[in-house]
Amino acid sequence: MYKGGYTGKILRINLTDKTIKEEPLLPKTAKDYIGGAGFCIKYLYDEVKAGADPIGPDNKLIFASGPFSGTKIPCASRMAVGGKSPLTNAVGLALTGGHFPVELKFAGYDALIIEGKAAKPTYIWIKDGEVKFRSAKNLWGLKTTDCQQIIKNELKDQNVRIACIGPAGENLSKIACIINEMRAAGRKGLGAVMGSKNLKAIAVRGTAALAIADKEKLKGARKEMTTAMKNSPVLYSHFAKMGTSGIMDAMCALGIFPTKNFSATGEFAPVDELGEEMQKTRNVGSESCYGCPVGCSQLKMARTTPYQGILSEGPEFESLYSFGGVTGVDNIDSVIAADRLADELGLDTISAGVTIAFAMELYEKGILTTKDTEGLDLHFGNHETMLVLLRMMAFREGIGDLLADGSKAMAEKIGKGTGKLAMHVKGLELPGYDVRGAKAHGLNYATSYTGADHNRGYAPQEIFGIPVPYAVDRFVAEGKGKLTKWNQDVRTATCDAPTMCGFLLDMALIGSAPQNTASLMKAVTGLEYTSDDIVKVGERINNLARAFNVREGFTREDDTLPERLMAEPLKDGASKGQCISKEDLKLMLDEYYMERGWDNTGVPTREKLVELGLEIVADDLACK
Amino acid sequence: MYKGGYTGKILRINLTDKTIKEEPLLPKTAKDYIGGAGFCIKYLYDEVKAGADPIGPDNKLIFASGPFSGTKIPCASRMAVGGKSPLTNAVGLALTGGHFPVELKFAGYDALIIEGKAAKPTYIWIKDGEVKFRSAKNLWGLKTTDCQQIIKNELKDQNVRIACIGPAGENLSKIACIINEMRAAGRKGLGAVMGSKNLKAIAVRGTAALAIADKEKLKGARKEMTTAMKNSPVLYSHFAKMGTSGIMDAMCALGIFPTKNFSATGEFAPVDELGEEMQKTRNVGSESCYGCPVGCSQLKMARTTPYQGILSEGPEFESLYSFGGVTGVDNIDSVIAADRLADELGLDTISAGVTIAFAMELYEKGILTTKDTEGLDLHFGNHETMLVLLRMMAFREGIGDLLADGSKAMAEKIGKGTGKLAMHVKGLELPGYDVRGAKAHGLNYATSYTGADHNRGYAPQEIFGIPVPYAVDRFVAEGKGKLTKWNQDVRTATCDAPTMCGFLLDMALIGSAPQNTASLMKAVTGLEYTSDDIVKVGERINNLARAFNVREGFTREDDTLPERLMAEPLKDGASKGQCISKEDLKLMLDEYYMERGWDNTGVPTREKLVELGLEIVADDLACK
Repeated sequence: MYKGGYTGKILRINLTDKTIKEEPLLPKTAKDYIGGAGFCIKYLYDEVKAGADPIGPDNKLIFASGPFSGTKIPCASRMAVGGKSPLTNAVGLALTGGHFPVELKFAGYDALIIEGKAAKPTYIWIKDGEVKFRSAKNLWGLKTTDCQQIIKNELKDQNVRIACIGPAGENLSKIACIINEMRAAGRKGLGAVMGSKNLKAIAVRGTAALAIADKEKLKGARKEMTTAMKNSPVLYSHFAKMGTSGIMDAMCALGIFPTKNFSATGEFAPVDELGEEMQKTRNVGSESCYGCPVGCSQLKMARTTPYQGILSEGPEFESLYSFGGVTGVDNIDSVIAADRLADELGLDTISAGVTIAFAMELYEKGILTTKDTEGLDLHFGNHETMLVLLRMMAFREGIGDLLADGSKAMAEKIGKGTGKLAMHVKGLELPGYDVRGAKAHGLNYATSYTGADHNRGYAPQEIFGIPVPYAVDRFVAEGKGKLTKWNQDVRTATCDAPTMCGFLLDMALIGSAPQNTASLMKAVTGLEYTSDDIVKVGERINNLARAFNVREGFTREDDTLPERLMAEPLKDGASKGQCISKEDLKLMLDEYYMERGWDNTGVPTREKLVELGLEIVADDLACK
Repeated sequence: MYKGGYTGKILRINLTDKTIKEEPLLPKTAKDYIGGAGFCIKYLYDEVKAGADPIGPDNKLIFASGPFSGTKIPCASRMAVGGKSPLTNAVGLALTGGHFPVELKFAGYDALIIEGKAAKPTYIWIKDGEVKFRSAKNLWGLKTTDCQQIIKNELKDQNVRIACIGPAGENLSKIACIINEMRAAGRKGLGAVMGSKNLKAIAVRGTAALAIADKEKLKGARKEMTTAMKNSPVLYSHFAKMGTSGIMDAMCALGIFPTKNFSATGEFAPVDELGEEMQKTRNVGSESCYGCPVGCSQLKMARTTPYQGILSEGPEFESLYSFGGVTGVDNIDSVIAADRLADELGLDTISAGVTIAFAMELYEKGILTTKDTEGLDLHFGNHETMLVLLRMMAFREGIGDLLADGSKAMAEKIGKGTGKLAMHVKGLELPGYDVRGAKAHGLNYATSYTGADHNRGYAPQEIFGIPVPYAVDRFVAEGKGKLTKWNQDVRTATCDAPTMCGFLLDMALIGSAPQNTASLMKAVTGLEYTSDDIVKVGERINNLARAFNVREGFTREDDTLPERLMAEPLKDGASKGQCISKEDLKLMLDEYYMERGWDNTGVPTREKLVELGLEIVADDLACK
């Protein structure tokens, strides 16, 4: 039994019948899944039946922080948000930081499970174990910043922390996100799940303290971690000052910064504008998640007409890509403005930008015309149009309705073979890595249980040349199956489940993360793990998530990449001539499945599931 | 000596040499001026020399709340902000509510005097008597809502209350305001004074309690007041639900709602849109100042393209006029959007709208052309242009620079006799009362020490037909001198000085306000007044403010109205055929000066000044 860290309570809220239930966090769930993504996937697998409509009352929306959130362990104020994704129909999972996750713990809960559908727009108010349903009639339609401020005023408590949706989530855009402060649980359309439940916001305030199993041990484990952080060659010296935008240069140098819907080179001529220039002339400070000594989140202010004075927390590297490179936009300030607008409207910046880029390519090719766009000029690089489209998407207005559900749905609506230009995997738009020049990233996109998701199995080996667990050649397919399994399992086990910041893994802890997580778990919760046990938790979660998807009908055919990446080699730059051929993909998948102990159709074997304590899953799926 | 209410301390901050000084509030100042506007004008008169540059380091910026702010007296969480106005070169004074005024008291101060000019962008952080200067380098350029949030994050205290300027104040727009929460100390360009001092914001947090001289007496005096409030035929039944927008209908029925820069009728065809329709379809709640049981401040959300989702606190009646009627705009949602944008940019909504309306008339008349506007179409009613102009004004971009200092400066720059179409008095743009059909309002505009300012001597007698102190005919000039003196002195004494909400006077307390203020003063501070003494305080303040203006060179010639209102009778509606002729104005001024005990050039007589205890002022002005 755990002795600290966890509150030990799960809050279950049914919006249909307005019931509230506190349930114990079962010790076995804690031990086997740690928290965060682990809890989300465990509850999703157990409670959301195959075929459930992602935007119907049978889907659930789960918010789960980790055992370290709210302790003195830095960089742990994060939470996972889970549900069946309306965008992919697979597991939907997104992580976010800020202060909400910790506040949820202080209010008494390790996780929150939202069920059913409210009859009317509603928000939930959780204060130290007391839960109230409140009308969101007046909040419906509000942008996310205003929504949060109005709720604070209404509750007469400026210290309330709020997660909410914008108009995009209300209008069931499948690329809608959930916003807390100016942070997003961005991807997979979980904002639409929240919207479909008529749930505008969750407000939380708590004052409880968390027990710690062994304070002395915690000091030691914490020291291990902070020492590694201090020893990082980039974390404080570079990353704290630049945030994720700091990798722009590296990405362009590698020739894998996607431009113009992946149709052009992997370099971006105005890279200096979006990278160092932006940082130098637009940076106005930074924000930190609760308890984070790094503060990677950079605040930027637009300086030129007509965007001057617009503030954004970000744009992160991914938004520089999605509102910059991939749309061909090189106007710094429009990227800042688009980033803010997407947050205000509650649209995932990656999916929104990539879908706009897709529309731009169709426009350039004459497949979409000004007749379709009601006169809007959708040429690559048109930043005014980009801003207008974001609003139209969130409100499903005019052509915005066509883009509002992401690129896959859009291609299906248009037909005419446009699917091959839609840059997604399983429906989830590609992040800012042109995987033609980074094959482990490609394999991760193809196999991540959430679709094209860099965060589920990021390969720092390819981007930063880190030779852990071994050195790799980013252009070579061989060996990427094993690497991807390692990246996915370690990341899941040491970041997504304990809800630790992923940047720590990449920049400070990469080799020592499992051991450090084991030490922290022992110190905080009293639960015993070896570092292998920790990695096994990651493997368990990845297998259970895979099982969820298999149960939903996903097969090996879905573990693929956009056709363009397999057919068109990169035209220029440091990855010139590279692509992931169908043979590459086959080779990588075969190796990956073998490493995972899955059969060659991508279904976990009974043996593997039993090894992971998931025999019941093997039964469910009738695994051999 | 006062025994409660006041903190007894004035905080003097010099930005040039970064010195901080606490000074006692002198008992005579408290007794003679009560607080708020009284304190502002007393300090301005004593400390800002004639001819001081309003945007130079010799001007001062004073924030003063009242003795009741922070007590249990409702509707008293207000403060006056004072400085020499860059817009008028006369006394600049603006009142605002919210929570900042009370927080300033809780932090230990009755008033704050800001002097000098910081070398670099700065903000001031006042916490329970501790004062710090902090860099505002990163805040410079931010809109007002973001600015407040970023400061809260930076100070790691979400309960901080902040008054700040937007880009307009930074760029020294003479119509820039100061914003706290979404409230404005709007008029007379005090935002530019703050900007000229390189002062972006003042953040305040306090926890002290205020002493009360006689709690039992306070209960009684408070009861008097709340009973009058409950007995009001409109306060809770109507005003709490509609706010100031509720008077739209009345104003149109009286035919005094100004349209198209006062060139058209005093009715507005789409009045229902801006009035009841807006309230019915756009209202999403209300906000209250600290301790206010009414909550007149209505939140509105825009619903239609391209403004949908934009929230505004307001638009108040005045902004419905300035962004609606006077510009000829009838698009509800654009008015909401303009109101919000002006608040974010830190532009006074009245002056901004009226200046835009002036530009529109010049455009319609061909005096401004698309060459001047770089292609913008400035026809009356063009709401897209209105929104674009606001941004351009705040950033002094293109033609925005021409509009950024209000209509008087704009007419001076353009020349060509355009001054006669510029709707201001002493440089301050006219509020939403076409005084051709409300002559006491006209006289108040002409004589208010701040220029065309409805708040300094509002005449509810003309608008609501209230026969206190006597019934009046709004079309008649006779008797308006005496009435205006009464309105100005009573309002100053019972609202502006004790910083009580003016709406209470108009809707609940009109006849009993002086007695009630006397009772409250006795109970809270222990200071003794008769109701005549209270009115005398108002008279003292009005005379001292007049003396300030006389010292600056203002004469009877400046107590005038825009030529149009004296030359062009209203063309239609319930005030058809009305204007304030030059003869009317002369008659009213003569009567007013006589009632005030001023000579017929508008200079206070020595006798009057001595009567008010202002002998030294008589000496200063060499009065006879």
